[in-house]
Amino acid sequence: MSERLVVIGGDAAGMSAASQARRLKSPGELEIVAFERGHFSSYSACGIPYWVGGDVGSRDELIARSPEEHRARDIGLRTRTEVTEIDVDRQRVRSRDLESGTEEWTGFDKLVIATGARPLRPPVPGIDAPGVHGVQNLDDGQALIDALSRTEDSGAGGSGAEGRRAVVVGAGYIGVEMAEALLNRGYEVTVLNRSEQPMATLDPDMGRLVHAAMDGLGIRTVNSAAVTKVLTGPDGRVRAVATDDEEYPADVVVLGTGVEPETTLAEEAGLPLGAYGGLLTDLAMRVRGHGNVWAGGDCVEVLDLVSGRMRHVALGTHANKQGQVIGSNVGGDYATFPGMVGTAVSKVCDLEIARTGLREKEAREVGLRFVTVTVESTSRAGYYPGAAPMTVKMLAERRTGRLLGTQIVGREGAAKRVDVAAVALTAKMTVEQMTALDLGYAPPFSPVWDPVLVAARKATAAVRAAG
Amino acid sequence: MSERLVVIGGDAAGMSAASQARRLKSPGELEIVAFERGHFSSYSACGIPYWVGGDVGSRDELIARSPEEHRARDIGLRTRTEVTEIDVDRQRVRSRDLESGTEEWTGFDKLVIATGARPLRPPVPGIDAPGVHGVQNLDDGQALIDALSRTEDSGAGGSGAEGRRAVVVGAGYIGVEMAEALLNRGYEVTVLNRSEQPMATLDPDMGRLVHAAMDGLGIRTVNSAAVTKVLTGPDGRVRAVATDDEEYPADVVVLGTGVEPETTLAEEAGLPLGAYGGLLTDLAMRVRGHGNVWAGGDCVEVLDLVSGRMRHVALGTHANKQGQVIGSNVGGDYATFPGMVGTAVSKVCDLEIARTGLREKEAREVGLRFVTVTVESTSRAGYYPGAAPMTVKMLAERRTGRLLGTQIVGREGAAKRVDVAAVALTAKMTVEQMTALDLGYAPPFSPVWDPVLVAARKATAAVRAAG
Repeated sequence: MSERLVVIGGDAAGMSAASQARRLKSPGELEIVAFERGHFSSYSACGIPYWVGGDVGSRDELIARSPEEHRARDIGLRTRTEVTEIDVDRQRVRSRDLESGTEEWTGFDKLVIATGARPLRPPVPGIDAPGVHGVQNLDDGQALIDALSRTEDSGAGGSGAEGRRAVVVGAGYIGVEMAEALLNRGYEVTVLNRSEQPMATLDPDMGRLVHAAMDGLGIRTVNSAAVTKVLTGPDGRVRAVATDDEEYPADVVVLGTGVEPETTLAEEAGLPLGAYGGLLTDLAMRVRGHGNVWAGGDCVEVLDLVSGRMRHVALGTHANKQGQVIGSNVGGDYATFPGMVGTAVSKVCDLEIARTGLREKEAREVGLRFVTVTVESTSRAGYYPGAAPMTVKMLAERRTGRLLGTQIVGREGAAKRVDVAAVALTAKMTVEQMTALDLGYAPPFSPVWDPVLVAARKATAAVRAAG
Repeated sequence: MSERLVVIGGDAAGMSAASQARRLKSPGELEIVAFERGHFSSYSACGIPYWVGGDVGSRDELIARSPEEHRARDIGLRTRTEVTEIDVDRQRVRSRDLESGTEEWTGFDKLVIATGARPLRPPVPGIDAPGVHGVQNLDDGQALIDALSRTEDSGAGGSGAEGRRAVVVGAGYIGVEMAEALLNRGYEVTVLNRSEQPMATLDPDMGRLVHAAMDGLGIRTVNSAAVTKVLTGPDGRVRAVATDDEEYPADVVVLGTGVEPETTLAEEAGLPLGAYGGLLTDLAMRVRGHGNVWAGGDCVEVLDLVSGRMRHVALGTHANKQGQVIGSNVGGDYATFPGMVGTAVSKVCDLEIARTGLREKEAREVGLRFVTVTVESTSRAGYYPGAAPMTVKMLAERRTGRLLGTQIVGREGAAKRVDVAAVALTAKMTVEQMTALDLGYAPPFSPVWDPVLVAARKATAAVRAAG
């Protein structure tokens, strides 16, 4: 007899789950109904900054699979339809068609919750004024691009962004990527950053390198700047952003202030949430204590394999993996998502930024004692054209020498080098074991000692010296 | 009382060992005497193709540390001095000053053998004719550059290499890199390749991709072409290279035909050699059965951690690591070189080539049963500018699913991706474990599923299907 799978959320985790379940089960075995409150499905939210900045020509390029394509594969995706209630006991969800307002209940045998995350808007006056933009989904991106085009067209001294000012609130991944995008469009960009340095997922010393590089690119970063108010003009549109100390004039404001799990529905349904508000699952991505409910993507907490703690990390790469795992299990196969090590890479123009594992603060919080080392090296053999400087910081546990984390700031070739450390973390290698790693070497690709190995050597010495 | 360390060979392994020993022991504790028969020390032989091709401006840029710099650090390096005999029992080496012809004996308490490798010249008539060049060391590189300059200056139709023909014998790393170098100088380049496809360290299907790309670059590759003769003109200089089938006119010939361990001295001294003629050492790089003799670099065989067999792999990255290990042990500290997994990367113009672990033939030779998968992916998110195609081939053991090898051919961003597989091999991961690896993702650096992960997913399915 046919079962019904209901999926809440039509982006990475939800539709990966649906697609993988469909590969394993025919429509006769498993009916799949997916609800998405937006217009789009399976899109790359991570690509929005590059669409805004002009590197990506159109919205459609960011869509991996359209609703029509999903439907053609026998996945009953209903866009612009919001799920308003999960009734776990009676195995049904209530949904509302956002066009017609019609509500209805849909029963399920199996449920996947992939409701994503919602932006953390600073709770200050004016934050909802026209001209203040989030960049959470494609609709947000389109709204921002439309607003930027209007701004650029209305220039008194001709068209374009010249002389126009953009303020980005937040200096995390989204913040710095949006700063690049707006800079590429010609704006004068100011980034207001609550923390001591940009990229608070790095240690402050590495964040300082990012700050200096952003300065060099012409992006002004103001640290320790808590936004207190968004000021509007007579037309009601944004005019400036205020902190305790200063007002920053703005033609447009972009919020890159992070996200939190969107788990309102789950909470109302009594499902288990963790310390960060994300759903708690087992290794097969089943919601804890619920045999027929799975959850994945930005709405769940994930196990940090290095610290042993649950964390909330909203990244498309986890969402895709988790969706795949859910779909395999829903479809009767077996797969797990064992956790992650906290890898993240980003860039601002030609500056590459990467991290994996724990930074100092995180290591301290879980009671680890550690040594840190920082080395300067280059992306290629020093004599090879284009060799670019690279700074690698490494944390290793005292006594055991186990790798705890790696941060890299550099130019071309810096970011993806962190993958070596990510695999080493997963394998629980010591920094001394890492010194023997057989990494690819040829002058166009690396010095004879790869920068990661140089850091591992120095960390090995530091572990010994610390005793 | 002061001990004396004697080092034979002044390049990567030997001088890394000497430098590391010096860091640990003062001149009062340890005298260091190093013999080098060439003019130079601690240079990057791997950089020679880029010097010949013009990417590197001068020979001096390839020298990491000159003889004078070594001497300034209390390392008594004697260049142009060849060791002619090792007397293990009486703990002394005989050397000859190549300028004066003077011979002498030098006693040692500890000995490091780092005699490197010698090129394998095809034993055919004319192979030693003027115009046929090896590229083993800096002197070779200089001779080639001088010859190329003379050839280019003597052009009938003006200066430059236009219309000049270069034949490269061998299509391994050195061969393809020299092909690029000569192409960059303006030569018409033909590569004569004994094997079925270029890059015999790859499987033939991946080698075919390299062949096609080289074609596209304007480099002609002739496979299954065994050189039978080098033909000379009336002036005695090279005129053409002959195979069984054809004659290939050549103004210059470069040999990229591989190397073998240079262990004549060691063999005469009765030291243990392996199946490939390389010295056999323990994990601390001590020559087996000899407490005070170490060996490292291109003259030793190394443990292949994937196959469990000894192999000969002449790579600067191993030589540097082994030298470091030797120096630590000689200096009274402790370190080991546990082995390698067979990683190698290279490029031909914008084509990047990488491999690690075992290729099909190697896996079969050691009795492994395996599945192979090949996937096409891109270096960046498909919608991001500059996303370049990449082919990843993966071998996994049947039943266990253990990763056995990975080969990658692509453009920018392809080569160093192999490092992820190199670390996974070292950690003996299965391809299923690899599917969960937390690799860096952002649109400018990777699709949301990194190409290596796509291959691991497909390999996981193949392992299951093979049963």
